[in-house]
Amino acid sequence: MTQATTARYNLLGLDGVPAGELAALLDEADGFVAAARNRETSDLLAGRVVANLFFEASTRTRCSFTVAANRLGASAIDLSGLGSSLSKGETVLATALNLEAMGVDAMVVRSARSGTPHLIADAVACGVINAGDGRHEHPSQGLLDILTLRRRWGDIAGRTVVIVGDIANSRVARSNLHGLTTLGANVVLVGPPALVPASFMKITAGPGRVSIDHDLDEALSRADAVMTLRIQIERHGTDDGGSIPPDYRRRYGLTVDRAASLPPEVLVMHPGPVNRGVEIDAEVADDPSRSVIMEQVTNGVAVRMAVLKRAISH
Amino acid sequence: MTQATTARYNLLGLDGVPAGELAALLDEADGFVAAARNRETSDLLAGRVVANLFFEASTRTRCSFTVAANRLGASAIDLSGLGSSLSKGETVLATALNLEAMGVDAMVVRSARSGTPHLIADAVACGVINAGDGRHEHPSQGLLDILTLRRRWGDIAGRTVVIVGDIANSRVARSNLHGLTTLGANVVLVGPPALVPASFMKITAGPGRVSIDHDLDEALSRADAVMTLRIQIERHGTDDGGSIPPDYRRRYGLTVDRAASLPPEVLVMHPGPVNRGVEIDAEVADDPSRSVIMEQVTNGVAVRMAVLKRAISH
Amino acid sequence: MTQATTARYNLLGLDGVPAGELAALLDEADGFVAAARNRETSDLLAGRVVANLFFEASTRTRCSFTVAANRLGASAIDLSGLGSSLSKGETVLATALNLEAMGVDAMVVRSARSGTPHLIADAVACGVINAGDGRHEHPSQGLLDILTLRRRWGDIAGRTVVIVGDIANSRVARSNLHGLTTLGANVVLVGPPALVPASFMKITAGPGRVSIDHDLDEALSRADAVMTLRIQIERHGTDDGGSIPPDYRRRYGLTVDRAASLPPEVLVMHPGPVNRGVEIDAEVADDPSRSVIMEQVTNGVAVRMAVLKRAISH
Repeated sequence: MTQATTARYNLLGLDGVPAGELAALLDEADGFVAAARNRETSDLLAGRVVANLFFEASTRTRCSFTVAANRLGASAIDLSGLGSSLSKGETVLATALNLEAMGVDAMVVRSARSGTPHLIADAVACGVINAGDGRHEHPSQGLLDILTLRRRWGDIAGRTVVIVGDIANSRVARSNLHGLTTLGANVVLVGPPALVPASFMKITAGPGRVSIDHDLDEALSRADAVMTLRIQIERHGTDDGGSIPPDYRRRYGLTVDRAASLPPEVLVMHPGPVNRGVEIDAEVADDPSRSVIMEQVTNGVAVRMAVLKRAISH
Repeated sequence: MTQATTARYNLLGLDGVPAGELAALLDEADGFVAAARNRETSDLLAGRVVANLFFEASTRTRCSFTVAANRLGASAIDLSGLGSSLSKGETVLATALNLEAMGVDAMVVRSARSGTPHLIADAVACGVINAGDGRHEHPSQGLLDILTLRRRWGDIAGRTVVIVGDIANSRVARSNLHGLTTLGANVVLVGPPALVPASFMKITAGPGRVSIDHDLDEALSRADAVMTLRIQIERHGTDDGGSIPPDYRRRYGLTVDRAASLPPEVLVMHPGPVNRGVEIDAEVADDPSRSVIMEQVTNGVAVRMAVLKRAISH
Repeated sequence: MTQATTARYNLLGLDGVPAGELAALLDEADGFVAAARNRETSDLLAGRVVANLFFEASTRTRCSFTVAANRLGASAIDLSGLGSSLSKGETVLATALNLEAMGVDAMVVRSARSGTPHLIADAVACGVINAGDGRHEHPSQGLLDILTLRRRWGDIAGRTVVIVGDIANSRVARSNLHGLTTLGANVVLVGPPALVPASFMKITAGPGRVSIDHDLDEALSRADAVMTLRIQIERHGTDDGGSIPPDYRRRYGLTVDRAASLPPEVLVMHPGPVNRGVEIDAEVADDPSRSVIMEQVTNGVAVRMAVLKRAISH
């Protein structure tokens, strides 16, 4: 949920963010993409301080927010380890309250627990940005995915995006689901039944439609873009029930053969980091004619610049 | 000891700093508190580099100095791990000499060993700030505590501050003792006899008076403010003689009952991080009518801006 | 190899860099040394972002590049741990490609593997600076050593520099060998036969001459400067064939006695960190009359400013 008041801007999720607000964010991010290409820099946020509160490690997302802050002249303070104070019994909330008291201008929060950024946003007065909370949302990732599609297509309304993988546990899927359907795109969720709960059909308000399909090839026949989610191989042991099904790649992997059957204009996306040869073949991920994976990374910085600008300038 | 020459400004302790110099630092910090409220930024120290040399971990103090540096336009380089070079046999002094040769403008030094900042200050030409050395001093903490009281009271002379806890091992208590008495406040040190050596009566020059009391309730009857020190629960094992006495909270804890008996204008302070339910009850630490704990954190950034400005501009 | 095109500047090694280009870099670095003395700062690279991609730990070199970036107004993002993404199976190249997509302006790369910076430079479009790759090169170290000598001598052509230690495994020796001989200095490589392969005689194009000597005292009789390399004591176990020979210090150490026999104008250098009492005695390393070790550190920041300016402004 995004709250905009005279004093405050948070980005906690894409659930409930109106289409107009999404479009305004994407428009501003478009401007930052152009500025980066022209190697323009800005001192809009000079002297401002962004705190990266990463209770769960993430080099990529942390770097992306840091580059975004620096490009606008702001500094980023990295609290990714949080070892010392947490080992003294500090709670997540106490850490956030202390940073607020120090006067940081915005907090970027990542946590393995759903709801941590909301908990912090309820407690502090500065802007809070959710950089991924458990299985809940990862709104800046959703925005960068949508920006990537919008820059390719001009308008995403009426387009169909297939999202394939462990939908149930994916905050990336959830944020995309909200943002894409709000802007009128249709989403097809694909994966093994256990990983794509039927309840996902009802979690968005539209106008885009949501459907579930357990047959990837059937779903791809309708796709304008296919977003392959990362299989969390580091979270799937070989002995537990959550291990990767042995035929996962055959049934749900974006293989060279499967990609070859797609029309040339169908785009391939991935939030990274990519497990080449698991959920997507290397040749497909690196195919310059249809993979937009690196564009996603570039657009991520621009989206985060737009979000930080709002969170701090408000 | 603070040394001010045409070429050099260090803040190694509050012992021996004259009242006029303390007042000037606090005046400047007051200005930075006001500037932060107005969201003003500064480029006074643009292009300058502060090295955080933390041989002992501290997320809070490091962040506070980093925010202070960034607010003035300076960069802060974090050397909190120091793993690589120290594992190659580099000494503390060699690290400092190398940073000096690289041209850093000031060094903020924390160490578990008393005297490390002084050792470094004797060896380098740039400004050195003690961010806590063993059981010796933590002068910026003392200054922020005094700033907090002065902002509340206008003048601290003649006021009585009760400091309760493990006084013998507290660098926070020691810096406060020096600063408060120099500015004319009276200090009552409270704790179990083993933790409040009688020798503390004589370590300051006044004009404020120092007394020792082993009865917290008796001491509180004279208090204008009470500063509860952190019990280092992580340093107190269950099997050694240093463990927390079982009746510590009953005798020396700032409990809800004890706080309720205080006049409403008595202020409650804590250097953080707080062990809620150990040395202070959560309700007391979070009581908006008398707790100034978050003001201490805010004032900490302002004090450190004033100190960094002097250390670098000199 | 340095590549200068309209769009690109890399510094991957000193091998093959023409004398004129070396001189131009050193001239620019000279200007930065003077600016630092006058405490001048610059916003030449304001808003620019340098990524420190350190796959091998190094506090000193990372700090030196960070100070250099900050002095020019740029930010430095530290990727020295790289724990999170690499543990997810990210490759070195994927990390670099992602940083490029995020729009970082230059990458400073250190790796225990020779060739890693070249691999990255082949894949990305931004400037890449080798901060030490395996046993191959450490070009900014070579440049700072040469700058230190040039500032002392005015011109290094015709001078003789003795480099003593584990030449075969030293990227510092290799970069110096290329840079010094290109500028007309003669180099004498000294060490046990196993550590100074005869093949080193042929790896440079001159005009300076290269010779090998296994007798340090004989070599020193011709020296204008002696550069003692660090013995990697942490890489030499007691049980393997690579352990330090028991008589190393007697034969190849720069002892007090040996230094006393040198003419007073012979300079003593060391890339640091110094193992005092192993490859060089403390009294020699710290001798203010001939040791230029701290000047090397100071000049390192200036050289890296010149390199970053080229890598980013191009």
